[in-house]
Amino acid sequence: MQENICIEPIGIIYSPFKTPKGTPIQSSAAIDTEGKIEIYEKYFPGLKDLEGFSHIILLYYFHLIKKTSLIVKPFMDEGFHGVYSTRAPVRPNHLGISIVRLESIDKQVLYIKNVDIVDKTPLIDIKPYCPEFDTRKVEKIGWLNRNIGKLHNIKDDERFLR
Amino acid sequence: MQENICIEPIGIIYSPFKTPKGTPIQSSAAIDTEGKIEIYEKYFPGLKDLEGFSHIILLYYFHLIKKTSLIVKPFMDEGFHGVYSTRAPVRPNHLGISIVRLESIDKQVLYIKNVDIVDKTPLIDIKPYCPEFDTRKVEKIGWLNRNIGKLHNIKDDERFLR
Repeated sequence: MQENICIEPIGIIYSPFKTPKGTPIQSSAAIDTEGKIEIYEKYFPGLKDLEGFSHIILLYYFHLIKKTSLIVKPFMDEGFHGVYSTRAPVRPNHLGISIVRLESIDKQVLYIKNVDIVDKTPLIDIKPYCPEFDTRKVEKIGWLNRNIGKLHNIKDDERFLR
Repeated sequence: MQENICIEPIGIIYSPFKTPKGTPIQSSAAIDTEGKIEIYEKYFPGLKDLEGFSHIILLYYFHLIKKTSLIVKPFMDEGFHGVYSTRAPVRPNHLGISIVRLESIDKQVLYIKNVDIVDKTPLIDIKPYCPEFDTRKVEKIGWLNRNIGKLHNIKDDERFLR
């Protein structure tokens, strides 16, 4: 019933964050941080019409993370939580998502803003962000509720590398 | 530089949609459709505190899709677009995301609503949905702009299985 699925990077994300330390923990808290993406040549035709979108969802591989933990102490709390109630990178399968601003596209290079991603992260997928698909009104955000005000002040401290 | 990454399902998504035909094309257009997720036992501890969130992001594998196309005619338009400017399942790596409502959790079973996912789809990841992380005001939604009003009337017609 369980089968392994093999996926392949479609490009590389470049950012000013050469190590995890100090990297913003969410793209919504990475205002004006610029980055770029180089898409591998074979995937280039898939970018057609992407420039019409102001925001895109990036799916990427946490390539620096070597361990998996099911119980974690996330950046935004002092307590322990199940990894699926957090966005911590030590989750099984080590996949992350970020919504970034798409500034421009020049051939196979995407210029992006609001980047919370470590330099040279392998990109797995791009999806257009559309509020009618991707925005929800919520009733509750669990343990994050008492911590959400700290979002812009907290940076990666490399706790998940150790 | 390119390396294959192997990922492993963490559970299975069950829904009323036994085949792609007729499945809603976005979870935001699947109002009140109920489903459930069975998480594999080894990942069970990772669910701690997830019940505090009203909405979760599911990352899953389009297991019925056997082909990849870089240029596609999406459900919501008559024209052809690069696959990365669409949410079509024939994208390289065959990974999809949906934001669903989390109704309740009973041991390793999650009861969910707003399901736009075909029955028995392998689940890859769960992330808590948080508006402060995941909501953006956008300036443009590209080719979708002239079609977005059709969202609730369009269903999967299995064009990507052929």
